[in-house]
Amino acid sequence: MSLDPSAARDPLAIADELARSFASTAAERDKRGGTPKAERDLLRRSGLLSLLVPEELGGAGAGWPLLLGVVRRFAEVDGAIAHVYGFQHLMLATVRLFGSGAQWRRLARSTVERSWFWGNALNPLDPRTTITPPRGGERVLQGVKSFCSGATDSDMLIVSATQPGEARLVIAAIPTDRAGVVVHQDWDNMGQRQTDSGTVELRDVLVSEDEILSTPGPLGSVLASLRPCIAQLTFATVYLGIAEGALAEAGRYTRAQTRAWFASGVERPTEDPYVLRRYGEMWVGLEAARALTEKATLALQRAWDAGDALSPEARGACALAIAAAKVATTRAGLEITSGMFDVTGARATTAAAGLDRYWRNLRTHTLHDPVDYKIRELGDHALNGALPKPSFYS
Amino acid sequence: MSLDPSAARDPLAIADELARSFASTAAERDKRGGTPKAERDLLRRSGLLSLLVPEELGGAGAGWPLLLGVVRRFAEVDGAIAHVYGFQHLMLATVRLFGSGAQWRRLARSTVERSWFWGNALNPLDPRTTITPPRGGERVLQGVKSFCSGATDSDMLIVSATQPGEARLVIAAIPTDRAGVVVHQDWDNMGQRQTDSGTVELRDVLVSEDEILSTPGPLGSVLASLRPCIAQLTFATVYLGIAEGALAEAGRYTRAQTRAWFASGVERPTEDPYVLRRYGEMWVGLEAARALTEKATLALQRAWDAGDALSPEARGACALAIAAAKVATTRAGLEITSGMFDVTGARATTAAAGLDRYWRNLRTHTLHDPVDYKIRELGDHALNGALPKPSFYS
Amino acid sequence: MSLDPSAARDPLAIADELARSFASTAAERDKRGGTPKAERDLLRRSGLLSLLVPEELGGAGAGWPLLLGVVRRFAEVDGAIAHVYGFQHLMLATVRLFGSGAQWRRLARSTVERSWFWGNALNPLDPRTTITPPRGGERVLQGVKSFCSGATDSDMLIVSATQPGEARLVIAAIPTDRAGVVVHQDWDNMGQRQTDSGTVELRDVLVSEDEILSTPGPLGSVLASLRPCIAQLTFATVYLGIAEGALAEAGRYTRAQTRAWFASGVERPTEDPYVLRRYGEMWVGLEAARALTEKATLALQRAWDAGDALSPEARGACALAIAAAKVATTRAGLEITSGMFDVTGARATTAAAGLDRYWRNLRTHTLHDPVDYKIRELGDHALNGALPKPSFYS
Amino acid sequence: MSLDPSAARDPLAIADELARSFASTAAERDKRGGTPKAERDLLRRSGLLSLLVPEELGGAGAGWPLLLGVVRRFAEVDGAIAHVYGFQHLMLATVRLFGSGAQWRRLARSTVERSWFWGNALNPLDPRTTITPPRGGERVLQGVKSFCSGATDSDMLIVSATQPGEARLVIAAIPTDRAGVVVHQDWDNMGQRQTDSGTVELRDVLVSEDEILSTPGPLGSVLASLRPCIAQLTFATVYLGIAEGALAEAGRYTRAQTRAWFASGVERPTEDPYVLRRYGEMWVGLEAARALTEKATLALQRAWDAGDALSPEARGACALAIAAAKVATTRAGLEITSGMFDVTGARATTAAAGLDRYWRNLRTHTLHDPVDYKIRELGDHALNGALPKPSFYS
Repeated sequence: MSLDPSAARDPLAIADELARSFASTAAERDKRGGTPKAERDLLRRSGLLSLLVPEELGGAGAGWPLLLGVVRRFAEVDGAIAHVYGFQHLMLATVRLFGSGAQWRRLARSTVERSWFWGNALNPLDPRTTITPPRGGERVLQGVKSFCSGATDSDMLIVSATQPGEARLVIAAIPTDRAGVVVHQDWDNMGQRQTDSGTVELRDVLVSEDEILSTPGPLGSVLASLRPCIAQLTFATVYLGIAEGALAEAGRYTRAQTRAWFASGVERPTEDPYVLRRYGEMWVGLEAARALTEKATLALQRAWDAGDALSPEARGACALAIAAAKVATTRAGLEITSGMFDVTGARATTAAAGLDRYWRNLRTHTLHDPVDYKIRELGDHALNGALPKPSFYS
Repeated sequence: MSLDPSAARDPLAIADELARSFASTAAERDKRGGTPKAERDLLRRSGLLSLLVPEELGGAGAGWPLLLGVVRRFAEVDGAIAHVYGFQHLMLATVRLFGSGAQWRRLARSTVERSWFWGNALNPLDPRTTITPPRGGERVLQGVKSFCSGATDSDMLIVSATQPGEARLVIAAIPTDRAGVVVHQDWDNMGQRQTDSGTVELRDVLVSEDEILSTPGPLGSVLASLRPCIAQLTFATVYLGIAEGALAEAGRYTRAQTRAWFASGVERPTEDPYVLRRYGEMWVGLEAARALTEKATLALQRAWDAGDALSPEARGACALAIAAAKVATTRAGLEITSGMFDVTGARATTAAAGLDRYWRNLRTHTLHDPVDYKIRELGDHALNGALPKPSFYS
Repeated sequence: MSLDPSAARDPLAIADELARSFASTAAERDKRGGTPKAERDLLRRSGLLSLLVPEELGGAGAGWPLLLGVVRRFAEVDGAIAHVYGFQHLMLATVRLFGSGAQWRRLARSTVERSWFWGNALNPLDPRTTITPPRGGERVLQGVKSFCSGATDSDMLIVSATQPGEARLVIAAIPTDRAGVVVHQDWDNMGQRQTDSGTVELRDVLVSEDEILSTPGPLGSVLASLRPCIAQLTFATVYLGIAEGALAEAGRYTRAQTRAWFASGVERPTEDPYVLRRYGEMWVGLEAARALTEKATLALQRAWDAGDALSPEARGACALAIAAAKVATTRAGLEITSGMFDVTGARATTAAAGLDRYWRNLRTHTLHDPVDYKIRELGDHALNGALPKPSFYS
Repeated sequence: MSLDPSAARDPLAIADELARSFASTAAERDKRGGTPKAERDLLRRSGLLSLLVPEELGGAGAGWPLLLGVVRRFAEVDGAIAHVYGFQHLMLATVRLFGSGAQWRRLARSTVERSWFWGNALNPLDPRTTITPPRGGERVLQGVKSFCSGATDSDMLIVSATQPGEARLVIAAIPTDRAGVVVHQDWDNMGQRQTDSGTVELRDVLVSEDEILSTPGPLGSVLASLRPCIAQLTFATVYLGIAEGALAEAGRYTRAQTRAWFASGVERPTEDPYVLRRYGEMWVGLEAARALTEKATLALQRAWDAGDALSPEARGACALAIAAAKVATTRAGLEITSGMFDVTGARATTAAAGLDRYWRNLRTHTLHDPVDYKIRELGDHALNGALPKPSFYS
């Protein structure tokens, strides 16, 4: 497979080609864990890392529907790659939304030119990283961060920290090879095993003031508060893609390898009324998840396009649409990735097929933040007309 | 309230005004049952009965999204009126889809000019009505039909019958006051009490050949096979509207009248975490039902617009979208109309409020045809790529 | 039908005979509402009102398994009668648990001798009734109470009130015909329509000190705190019986009147794989509800038998078993009473059959106190090992 | 740890001691897969392998409640060991039920004396093994069997085969070291990884006629048809134990390691209303599963005790009770083993904790035979009064 990023190709076609390639090794890489270095380099060469960058800055100028379409396509075959690919754009959006126009232009341009892969070291709930107040145009980062998805093999990092005694996050965009940055390869979890969501240690890391994203800063404007919306919708899209991949895989397995149950009275499982019912149930759940995710994606694009004119009400409506999509994809996904075995049968549990990775990936990722609090937000809207209060999780 | 159909008003605004009027008497009329004569006459005067009729035939030329939007608005306050109003258009669509162009133009024009309200006497599963073969340009209908929604106080009827020894339905459009047509006022059921879904008796009813809808006839072309799609989507829309009405009513009640549970630790039920959770759950279900119904409505409009160019594949995709909407609205509706009491409390069961009518209406209407067979169709598609086989129920 | 209470007959056989009688008029009486006077008098003559009274006081000396077995049998055919019959024993148990030995002996004996039917005017959440401090051996009740099940046509009432400025309930057992007691016939709700759960007004009602149940008083000992356990288990038993009655009724209907769905490929609905699945699901839910209710009933009997030796831990274990039974019966009941229509079909909605009364009865009764707080209690035990804190609802 | 089988110790105490030992290595052994040789030898030395053997044959003479209590205790910590331990008794019961009294006495005695561990090579749905008709008192087995749980490191095997042209199974009990028996170590599946449920190959294996269990033979009498009941209840018990272990593990994790969600308003997750709710839901499901499994276990014991006097009706009732238990344990188990993560959080997905093994074990084992057909059987009983038709799966 060769990818020529210079050619003006349809990003979805490129993504599809990559997805086929990722699929062929996904089960094996899931077992192995660690960094999917070859796949990350394919992504670097594909041009898909700068989809979000506007054309005037050298990128593809893609909107969220296209971009999340790529995330979804990847998630069908590999939840881990979809995750870090989604985070690439979440990190870029962080620069766009929290930083100044100059920072955005500079970093976006470099992302295109140098095929930067961005990693995450922003974790509002892990308070162990501090940053000194500016002195002589410089600050010092110190501490550790957990759940740093995509930090390994990244070129740039988004790091969050707090100044002693202050609650507000300070967020910086720095090169991963900056002196003192140590990316630990310590992610060994039951799912999303190739997301490198381990620990980043920051040992007296110098940060210059123009690496701080402070205009308007984290959640510093209505527009800036779209950042958690983007994060949540990216998650929902990953869940949707995983569920779609699982259902497709189940279908292939049932058609090709499952036997009719002896008491079913039919010759093939594809005619068994109970097998059909289960596929129907999974389909309805998935269709709902799809419809809500697509609706939410359009809402995000409208909010993004509104720019600084984005009203709190419109932001709230967008957040609600995304919350509904997240709940629906979480539920449909968990049901499908566990229920797929009821329609494939005992032999489908062979480790060689690795079909449990869909559930393990989804189950792991859906724990990012509790779905119960999304449901509460939706209830507060349904009953009290409330809009979600912007936070890093809403 | 006065309605001036001559004024060019937004149909949704008219519907909204009517809905407010219907709402004020809905609980009382539900208890009473029978024919909502005053409300039917308001509908006759509103101009909304000919929304589907193209402008060149004197109607409003509305599309399905607008038309079903009116059905949904009515269903929020009165499932029975929404039902017969939806059937008005299902009957008209039957003329359009099963009959000749000349029949459509003639009957559509008269519907506008005479404010005809159409009733149903088409019931493929009730075999008790026969029709003679044509002799001298005339046929004779004989027998009874059950579940004839909206037949009482109707101006025109769509009647189905079979010729002895033949399976295919013969469908006629005849005036309700035709000699021999006896509309029994025998609908007394637990829900949808003002739909007059009782029995029509046909005692040697003469039908002229040009009253038979035979070009292309029932399900006689791909386009004609949209008729069950329209029926099913109308049902889903009624279910959706009922559910939306129930949730809105629950919210009003919780906010105004429910007390906080003594062990909740909060002052008002609107802050109770479990009450919020239940509203959130109902909201997610409803949002999914809404998204799927809206998607299905656009699919129907596209299929309708395709006319005779409609392909079996496009018809199948439309039917699948509608099936998903129907399953989702049925489920969300049943959960909301029963679960609304968990968030309103024991005092909300007072007969004066009549809140059980939402569940009774929905529960009754959702039995039109078994939802299990819709799920089976969706499963057959998900697993085998099959399209629903057109029938009067698919 | 004649009942001879003097004959030593098996109470369950008597209950069964009565149940058959109640069943024949249940649908009609549900429509009518009001007081089931004839049925209440049958109960008075049956001897079943004093099942709980020990043999040495002239009663049947029945245990809770037998007594709740009668409640369950009645609930199968008439949720309202089951409710007031269950409350008869809850009121007697209130005397036994909150009052002195002398009070219990006196009132229990009179219950046997005069066939007293007890009604409820104890409602801890309705603060509108006050009682004066004792003066000259007398107190005065003043105010109103809502949800007074079985007060109409009762011989004795259990009334709760508070002294101004005090939180603890004062509870009295007084004759319903005491001067100043006005039982309003204002219960007109969507379900449990013949429970007379309306308002009792107390206009300067004199109460003598020996009518106050104050030794040990409400929840005044570990044993006394079994009172809410008895209430909750009585409810669960009513829910279970209603669900069992609904499933039995559904089965009769499906077998006798439902038609096979045209697309099912079978001749009778009793062979339809989806109909069988639904019955299987209802059965599993009901079996679980049954097993938990039976387990809880044995736990209650053990706790009751322990008398003053009952430990808080044993009381807690009993309360937990009852909470689980209540949640399970509520859920299974709501699913069956709504789902029964999916297996009986549209024609089963005829008002003549009155099948919606199962749902209306259960839905109404299950709102007594929020099931969510029962689930919370169970979770607090599962996670933290906590025992339910005794209150009038736990 | 030392176990002295000669001492008369409470089997449950022994099991508890073993379970603690198994628990300490369960996560690590799950990763490794293969045969738990050390643990199997501990079982051999524990005396627990002959619990089912009557005292007069040298065994413990335990009933099914005790025996399945041991299975459940093991399953709490290690689903795989519970499975093969349960199969030990299923194999013994196969000898008892399908074979002659003499065969039972001989093999039961040897099981005690030589601490035999029995393995399975009986698989009615794998038709690849044949047996010749008897010739000179000998037969020859030829073919392969899949899903042969516990065959590795076993001392004896139960093997099923068919004679060419005949449908009825021939079942033999032979030593695993018989010439021609090749036990492949090819079980590498996503769950139940240490059950050795791989392939057994039979290369011209000689079987003597007195090794054939033919009096009364497979399902050869009402009593013999208890064999599938025992299998199904053993499965249900394993599912129950896994679920109980998962919930206990979740509780320990939540209490010790989970942090309160920042938006919860409480300090510890043990006070979070939504966390409590989830524990409550899991508890209710588990309590129901427990109650049904215990009820089914008593039903099995009664049926077992009935011996040859067992009626088809009593056998049917037992099978129904077991079917309900199986459905309930399957459902509660799947919900708990997946839902446990919602209350433990993202960090609980660390591979070091290995908490996904509960789901993987349960998901794998619950595919033994489709739960949908159990539900159908229950529905057939609920609607039609039918009893499950004895087969190797009912």
